[in-house]
Amino acid sequence: MGHTHAARRGKLGVLVADRGYDAVLVTRLVNVRYLTGLASSNAALLVRADGTALLATDARYAGTAAKISPDLETLVERAVALRLTGLAAESGIGRLAYEAHDVTVERHAELTTVSEGIELIPFGHGVEELRKVKDEDEIAMLARACAITDQAFDDVLSSIKVGVTEREIAIALERRMVDLGADKPAFDSIVASGPNGAIPHHEPGGRQFETGDLVTMDFGALYDGYHADMTRTVAVGHVAHWQKEVYDLVQAAQQAGIDAAVPGAETKDVDAAARDLIVAAGHGDDFPHGLGHGVGLEIHEAPLLGYDKTGRLADRVPITAEPGVYLAGRGGVRIEDTLVVRTAGPEILTKTTKELLVV
Amino acid sequence: MGHTHAARRGKLGVLVADRGYDAVLVTRLVNVRYLTGLASSNAALLVRADGTALLATDARYAGTAAKISPDLETLVERAVALRLTGLAAESGIGRLAYEAHDVTVERHAELTTVSEGIELIPFGHGVEELRKVKDEDEIAMLARACAITDQAFDDVLSSIKVGVTEREIAIALERRMVDLGADKPAFDSIVASGPNGAIPHHEPGGRQFETGDLVTMDFGALYDGYHADMTRTVAVGHVAHWQKEVYDLVQAAQQAGIDAAVPGAETKDVDAAARDLIVAAGHGDDFPHGLGHGVGLEIHEAPLLGYDKTGRLADRVPITAEPGVYLAGRGGVRIEDTLVVRTAGPEILTKTTKELLVV
Repeated sequence: MGHTHAARRGKLGVLVADRGYDAVLVTRLVNVRYLTGLASSNAALLVRADGTALLATDARYAGTAAKISPDLETLVERAVALRLTGLAAESGIGRLAYEAHDVTVERHAELTTVSEGIELIPFGHGVEELRKVKDEDEIAMLARACAITDQAFDDVLSSIKVGVTEREIAIALERRMVDLGADKPAFDSIVASGPNGAIPHHEPGGRQFETGDLVTMDFGALYDGYHADMTRTVAVGHVAHWQKEVYDLVQAAQQAGIDAAVPGAETKDVDAAARDLIVAAGHGDDFPHGLGHGVGLEIHEAPLLGYDKTGRLADRVPITAEPGVYLAGRGGVRIEDTLVVRTAGPEILTKTTKELLVV
Repeated sequence: MGHTHAARRGKLGVLVADRGYDAVLVTRLVNVRYLTGLASSNAALLVRADGTALLATDARYAGTAAKISPDLETLVERAVALRLTGLAAESGIGRLAYEAHDVTVERHAELTTVSEGIELIPFGHGVEELRKVKDEDEIAMLARACAITDQAFDDVLSSIKVGVTEREIAIALERRMVDLGADKPAFDSIVASGPNGAIPHHEPGGRQFETGDLVTMDFGALYDGYHADMTRTVAVGHVAHWQKEVYDLVQAAQQAGIDAAVPGAETKDVDAAARDLIVAAGHGDDFPHGLGHGVGLEIHEAPLLGYDKTGRLADRVPITAEPGVYLAGRGGVRIEDTLVVRTAGPEILTKTTKELLVV
């Protein structure tokens, strides 16, 4: 992977040069990981316009850094950003870009104490933009995370029955994913049953499933840094007419969103493809969130798909498509896949059936 | 708990008034939780000098907010900080403090677009300072988290044997804590065996325990928002002379640190009480981290205990005491308790034996 990370730093260097900066100070930890392979809770990276770089991390991670990036010059230092900024000043860097969406006002004031002669310039979300289009190695990790997620759903499905609690199913899904090779769950799992299904981010609790419940499960595996994200809604015992109607609507909307997710599509148009169906059915107000989001080293990352979002999709951009309809006091339905936007058509990574299962 | 949170906001209001501000915009989510009870991934709180407050959170958390803080005025809004700042400007607030250690440079620039006529002033870590001294309800939560941690250790101890992997024990500890009532693990558990014990933050992997290993386990339960933190080091099969020597040293240093943790003590002196013993034994360079840290709604919070830290302990401040000695290539020992600094003497919340157990 060493050459992969060096190539990414090279691309970032080009971006830095294009914008007329001498270097960029990368402080967002997930961006440092993307550019070096190092998952550290304290690290920063200076990438120069020529693509060369200097990593700083503290003693706890020094050994790992040396193993992962033997060719990358690395400083062992606790005050990582401060030290790199000081070194940049000493080495004659004049225009230093920094991640203004990560650096706090307090940290920025610290940096200015060592940045004499340097102009500190907000870089914007340049690294996040680079991260949007994944390479095939990254997509393979995501696919593995999604395969674990599918298998866990399949293995736990028979445990969903009257009397079992939301929390028990959440724990069962999470444990099964780890047993199947996940590092851990990609995020806190949601299991929302009956009326709780009307709460998009319901925290699984002690409510026991009852006959006639819809149960929405939103969960995923983390595999080697990459996050799977899947939601399925199943019915317990039997399905009421209104439940089937809402389910079919959400499923049709999800498919319309997936069909619209082609390279070059405006993100707001992809959202609209799904949303228009839900609005037309009179449920516009019951779908209060965006259609989906990018996934990768973060569970939520660029691009965001929503009616008020801008930007275009591209080949090899993994996203989720997750419309939902939430009816206060009654319940809800959400259906979500992780998929990759491809020139050849969307590649769905979560392969669990979207038929309405009655358990 | 409603009156508890109102009382905390009242104390914060006094602090705001004392400093001559009209209000403070609290954006650190853990601080919002402390002041309202609401655990949200998107919330902000405006606390005025008179202790009155206005909460903002998005639609996902509106129901929970209404349930937890029925008496607290709440806005349902996605751009929480921006909206509260705009309202502050409209309501004639002139001097608005904000959390400059949380607000990014990018976010600050956004806030200035709606803060005409307002002076935005860094507030420092005022809420974190208030959070240092816990009330007895908080200490009860911590004690429960620590009791779960103790019980999980006791239940898993017999599984530590030759051939078992670090990861298997980490997973067993985490699952047992959840089965015993933890919300989830308080942090990613560390299980470091044999030579891996020399890495303070080793990530548990596939290494199988061997006879003669020391195994260091650093883990804890999260209970209702409060974090337990405990480390124990055990020996597999038998104990070499050097291992026993290092163990006894770390144990003595830990006890010296605990004994020094009295109300009024300088944090650096508490660190020194433990560190001096380790330095005197010739292992100063093998103890490369601070003695401990505050624990509560965060796993690491104020006060930090280290040779270069300032500040004084007080009655009802929970901290950890966790000295370690790490010998590259050979292994390491760390012993850690969560305890509460008390006028009547330290209250140790993690009660697992610190005798060197041979399993």
